[in-house]
Amino acid sequence: MSKQPMFEKVALIGVGLIGSSIAHGARKHGLVSHIAATARSEATRTIVADQGIADEVFETGQETVAGADLIIICTPVGAFEAVAKEIGPHIAPGAIVTDVGSVKEAVVNAVSPHLADGVHLVPGHPVAGTENSGPESGFAELFEDRWCILTPPSGTDETATAKLQEFWQALGSRVEIMTPQHHDLVLAITSHVPHLIAYNIVGTAADLETVTESEVIKFSAGGFRDFTRIAASDPTMWRDVFLNNKEAVLEMLGRFNEDLSALQRAIRWDDGDALFKLFSHTREIRREIIDAGQETDAADFGRPHGSESDD
Amino acid sequence: MSKQPMFEKVALIGVGLIGSSIAHGARKHGLVSHIAATARSEATRTIVADQGIADEVFETGQETVAGADLIIICTPVGAFEAVAKEIGPHIAPGAIVTDVGSVKEAVVNAVSPHLADGVHLVPGHPVAGTENSGPESGFAELFEDRWCILTPPSGTDETATAKLQEFWQALGSRVEIMTPQHHDLVLAITSHVPHLIAYNIVGTAADLETVTESEVIKFSAGGFRDFTRIAASDPTMWRDVFLNNKEAVLEMLGRFNEDLSALQRAIRWDDGDALFKLFSHTREIRREIIDAGQETDAADFGRPHGSESDD
Repeated sequence: MSKQPMFEKVALIGVGLIGSSIAHGARKHGLVSHIAATARSEATRTIVADQGIADEVFETGQETVAGADLIIICTPVGAFEAVAKEIGPHIAPGAIVTDVGSVKEAVVNAVSPHLADGVHLVPGHPVAGTENSGPESGFAELFEDRWCILTPPSGTDETATAKLQEFWQALGSRVEIMTPQHHDLVLAITSHVPHLIAYNIVGTAADLETVTESEVIKFSAGGFRDFTRIAASDPTMWRDVFLNNKEAVLEMLGRFNEDLSALQRAIRWDDGDALFKLFSHTREIRREIIDAGQETDAADFGRPHGSESDD
Repeated sequence: MSKQPMFEKVALIGVGLIGSSIAHGARKHGLVSHIAATARSEATRTIVADQGIADEVFETGQETVAGADLIIICTPVGAFEAVAKEIGPHIAPGAIVTDVGSVKEAVVNAVSPHLADGVHLVPGHPVAGTENSGPESGFAELFEDRWCILTPPSGTDETATAKLQEFWQALGSRVEIMTPQHHDLVLAITSHVPHLIAYNIVGTAADLETVTESEVIKFSAGGFRDFTRIAASDPTMWRDVFLNNKEAVLEMLGRFNEDLSALQRAIRWDDGDALFKLFSHTREIRREIIDAGQETDAADFGRPHGSESDD
């Protein structure tokens, strides 16, 4: 390492795909001097220790955060309040606390009451992931060319935000800053509702009497298969997403339903022009995504923010 | 070619991804002695001639089908009736007429009235495709390990069905035989409704005021991107699919909507257990698809039956 590390000690609370990828990336780029991690299950602690993902691994958060100048919560969002309560009193003044959760307003609400003055909360969300989960699936390049969204609540120390932005950029990410509320709206339409309808159609297909499950599986190459990839995402993580971004998800789902009713009506009344018009318009949006470099051959289709560890 | 070709002359009506892939595959495996093709646009005829996809290419169907013992209609389904009317009187007795359309009952209804006695109609649907369309995107291996569904109406000559089955198997496909009606139900859930909701959510996202289109595109890696891939499918082909499989699509869409309402309610009432239960169940179905060998690294995500040529 030729350059000075950005942080002395990073504490990772939870070591799934995202947590372990941060560890690998931070080490590769020489961003931190020391990595401590918390994993609740013994199985995960063994993997983390055996593979040298962190320098130290603990069962609880207290020792992990002691003396850390960067704390990253990488558990499912439903565990954030308990985590914050546990680690809050042990965080050094001046430290930055961030996370990788897929919702942001609920995170601010759950975490900030447990942090002392002088501790900087800068919630984050790397929009990256793969189909795999667990500490053994992480790799240093996961965040390269992906977006990471930071959502500092108003009044957040700007130096802290800038330092965290620099950290993510050093991991290869592009960084965008927005309010927690706006993040939740954007992700509701680009991630949460797509997951919900993917889960839903796979459930619908499984419950049919007229078409057997074996037929559904056999002929899944017709489009259905892509939905199952999304609907294979971690159940705990996604339960927590929907419970913690309820309003934005229900708002976007309302829009989706209105539009679907119109489409249904167009089919019923043989309105081929309306169908053709919509189908042509959506094709253009696809082109823009490709132009924006957000399509990739990498196997991260449908696994948005990766699976945060449920440890 | 060591073995005897299965057919003397195959006539391809329309030369898109599927039609040209059949031509390449038939040639590679020595299945036919002569390939004739119809392409309405001059641009397509030039490509077909320049790349030697067919031995002869015509603007109309009449000359293409003359003397053919296998006729494969590869246009969008909406053009089938006109095609059948045009070619019907010129088809040699004993010839097999098939197609590659994504709906089957409507195909039987559109085509069979125009065929003479002694001509064998055996509709087919190769459940294969890529994201690309047009005659230049075809390749001989497209159908390997994919399913092809044949839907002979009751009373169809069994020798004709068996011969067509052998043809598809020689192209590398696995073949399943079912009624046109059942095909349409199976595909409604495994392909048509998935496409409809993908088109729908991409349309919803494009119309939002609270989230900009540029944000949707930037953060599309969160799941939305996979839907845009599906929603980039050929507008003409898909308009025709929905207009020609109305009943099954509306039936499956009704189920989808019921289930989505229940899910919406579970979110509104914080029923985490209901969400977790569904999300765990759908994960198992994903596993079964992988076990059944219907997942692939090939770039054919979301392009079900390929894009039939709109020529």
